Amino acid sequence: MADAPLLGLKLDPGTSTPLFAQIYEALRRRIISGQLGTGYRLPASRNLAQELGVSRATVVAAYDQLMAEGFAQGRRGAGVYVSDIGEVEIDQASHTPVAALPDVTSPPSPPIRPFQPGRPDMRLFPYRQWARCFSRVARSDPQALVVGSDPFGDLHLRTAIVRYLADWRGLNVSPQQILITAGSVDALEICLRTLASPGDFIALEDPGYAPLRSLIGSLGMRPRWLELDAHGACLPDIGAGVKTPVLAMLTPSSQFPLGGAMPTKRRVEFLSWAQRTDSWIVEDDYDSEFRYAGRPIPALASFEPRFDQGGRTLYLGSFSKVFTDSLRLGFLVVPMHILERISMSVRAHGTKASIAPQRALALFMENGEFYRHIRRMRRMYGERRSVLVGLLRDQLGHIVSFEDHHAGMQIVVRLAPQFDDVQIAKLAAQRGVTCAALSSYYACEPKVQGLLLGFCGFSPQELKSAVNVLREVLESV
Amino acid sequence: MADAPLLGLKLDPGTSTPLFAQIYEALRRRIISGQLGTGYRLPASRNLAQELGVSRATVVAAYDQLMAEGFAQGRRGAGVYVSDIGEVEIDQASHTPVAALPDVTSPPSPPIRPFQPGRPDMRLFPYRQWARCFSRVARSDPQALVVGSDPFGDLHLRTAIVRYLADWRGLNVSPQQILITAGSVDALEICLRTLASPGDFIALEDPGYAPLRSLIGSLGMRPRWLELDAHGACLPDIGAGVKTPVLAMLTPSSQFPLGGAMPTKRRVEFLSWAQRTDSWIVEDDYDSEFRYAGRPIPALASFEPRFDQGGRTLYLGSFSKVFTDSLRLGFLVVPMHILERISMSVRAHGTKASIAPQRALALFMENGEFYRHIRRMRRMYGERRSVLVGLLRDQLGHIVSFEDHHAGMQIVVRLAPQFDDVQIAKLAAQRGVTCAALSSYYACEPKVQGLLLGFCGFSPQELKSAVNVLREVLESV
Repeated sequence: MADAPLLGLKLDPGTSTPLFAQIYEALRRRIISGQLGTGYRLPASRNLAQELGVSRATVVAAYDQLMAEGFAQGRRGAGVYVSDIGEVEIDQASHTPVAALPDVTSPPSPPIRPFQPGRPDMRLFPYRQWARCFSRVARSDPQALVVGSDPFGDLHLRTAIVRYLADWRGLNVSPQQILITAGSVDALEICLRTLASPGDFIALEDPGYAPLRSLIGSLGMRPRWLELDAHGACLPDIGAGVKTPVLAMLTPSSQFPLGGAMPTKRRVEFLSWAQRTDSWIVEDDYDSEFRYAGRPIPALASFEPRFDQGGRTLYLGSFSKVFTDSLRLGFLVVPMHILERISMSVRAHGTKASIAPQRALALFMENGEFYRHIRRMRRMYGERRSVLVGLLRDQLGHIVSFEDHHAGMQIVVRLAPQFDDVQIAKLAAQRGVTCAALSSYYACEPKVQGLLLGFCGFSPQELKSAVNVLREVLESV
Repeated sequence: MADAPLLGLKLDPGTSTPLFAQIYEALRRRIISGQLGTGYRLPASRNLAQELGVSRATVVAAYDQLMAEGFAQGRRGAGVYVSDIGEVEIDQASHTPVAALPDVTSPPSPPIRPFQPGRPDMRLFPYRQWARCFSRVARSDPQALVVGSDPFGDLHLRTAIVRYLADWRGLNVSPQQILITAGSVDALEICLRTLASPGDFIALEDPGYAPLRSLIGSLGMRPRWLELDAHGACLPDIGAGVKTPVLAMLTPSSQFPLGGAMPTKRRVEFLSWAQRTDSWIVEDDYDSEFRYAGRPIPALASFEPRFDQGGRTLYLGSFSKVFTDSLRLGFLVVPMHILERISMSVRAHGTKASIAPQRALALFMENGEFYRHIRRMRRMYGERRSVLVGLLRDQLGHIVSFEDHHAGMQIVVRLAPQFDDVQIAKLAAQRGVTCAALSSYYACEPKVQGLLLGFCGFSPQELKSAVNVLREVLESV
């Protein structure tokens, strides 16, 4: 063994970061900092593996990742070299060289681990078919990749969404009513900025989607928490001295994070509450594609008898559950009678959705690939869900309880009150298993102790090992 | 002439909307509403032109626009047919048919008219070269069109931006410090959300960028106006009982909208103000590509002696002046010591920049097309600017005055105080000329009367006609 360790690498077998990721990270940092310059030949994988006491496959995986991201190039056998993509000129005397800077860079997101919730399995995404849509736009209408003629978004995409809504969500609207947004948070912001003012109360489900709380706070608005009963979110309190919320954010198709659809009776009560109090409802339909039994549940907005003229519901759709959130595309369905208000607000604050992927997405929907992929994922996720349900019953039935909603991308298990879900999530994380603590989704007491277990991104084998880890953690506390 | 007018079209010669746009709009509305169904053959352009009493070229222009946007297809001579893209299913009894809905749709942005400021000439954009970058990504790395591994954006793009900043803006930073945003407003929001809180004062130049004011208001923050003197924005007042702004938004390379760069002395004063008061400076470098004489002015951030460890400046770059704002890509350069804060804020609020165009933009920058296009545009816009300066001297020298900054995308002319710039802008708009009223960019009195005349998007001939219209309007009041 050489006196000086090769490249000065040191691995930490005690952390939950896989060894290949540690090697990748360490090399990446040295390339960015310039310690390993352009053209530097990385040690042969066999040698580095021997030196570090890991398998050669581990080093090869790290090199492959570096090559995939453009930090290095070459081929196995013929040598792997640092590419010039990481070259950073720091030549001004007043600047500290990057090499000495604290390592607060945002590293690539760690590989998704079970049970990270709400994430599609991007290993199964039809990348070639998706890329072909871009190639087709590039050939046939290159302008569509950079300029748009409408602040509401590409008309082809809006028309494709209209068809999708009619077929899948029972919602019949016109393309004029579709506003393309840069994902859900952008859409929520547009709703809040247009329909509410600082100081106003916004009704939010408790438990619910955490970024919504910080968004409302940052806009100077105040939350009014809606408790959940067996029929979903309860109506806001009415009475003397209680200010009516101007807007309620709901997840009627599948409550986030608990799951379960709001029954028709409660939907109608919300609609008539909104009509009576001149309030608004924003229906966040974030993962309704994934229903594994029975028919799709129609959107709340489709229950409005006069959606266009007097409707109080804005429907919010997302593509994040199919494409991950890197694509940043979602949409808002606006009742006709407030199109002008929304349009003015969009013009005043500017749009945030890029035109670049819109036409390609329209093609992807129109040529059927989008639907084929969703059907395939639904089958796959449905199987994974069954596996997880079985494992939970067999392995954890004595500790946890859960409801089976046959929908969504995660299962919420409840723990007995003596458990501390935050502590359990921490212990599991140390052992390579991500499970979000249910209590952290609550704003008010009592916070139910439980865990969110996402199942979509993981093979039956991965789910099995993760449930084993979870059982050991639960039994150890 | 037939008894019933062809398609029931009626033109209004009295409005400022060009005739071709009126025809286009009317047909588009009928196609969207379903009045003209899929496959409907539009009347021969010759016949419709005769019927409406317009030139055939006017009808052809309207048909071309419909075909460009996918509402119709075919070729001239062989017939133009309504395409099925506008087909909208409205079959639910509870919905009003689209045909009868009020026409509050957001129409495609009207064609850009002189002197619309701040808009690049997209007729000159290298669409094929841009599309080729997408095709290349689609072929070589299709994953890059949908998934990203870093919430700060694609590393290739961030590295390309680092090179751009070093070469063009005298700013030496590392790719870690670059955060890709969905345009400037997104970047400004991230700065405000991370570094300021509701109730805080934000220093804004007066006159300045209007959307910034509504953004600050919607976040519950309060403006502190910075007057402009001959050296650019003045420092915020200091004194007993005056709360220091936590953040100042500046346009030091080219004051918006007046133009002109902030001299070094004032820059240094601002930097030492920020250091002394622990405040932040956001440097909005919105159009520094377009400087027609002399060397590029270095960024304010490049003056910071310790940008990385203690820097108080965040630099904000935009691609809107090259790609229009449909692409929705900009970036923020973050001093190293607050990377972690910005990163946490981005994770809490979510990102809005789409991954889809990022790798393609990196290629476009790396293969030099980006720089070739900017150089070409700079030459072209420089010529147009000279034409406009000459026209203003010859035609309007007796009414307006202006400073010549040899930079930017518009010229601001000042009017004598007896003029009402809003009224003049209105009169000009009726005659097909868009000029923004300078007074509307001011928050405080005295509001200077003047007009913003954008010159980039218009040929010398277009500029000439528009100056003629403007002279007639000014002489008429």
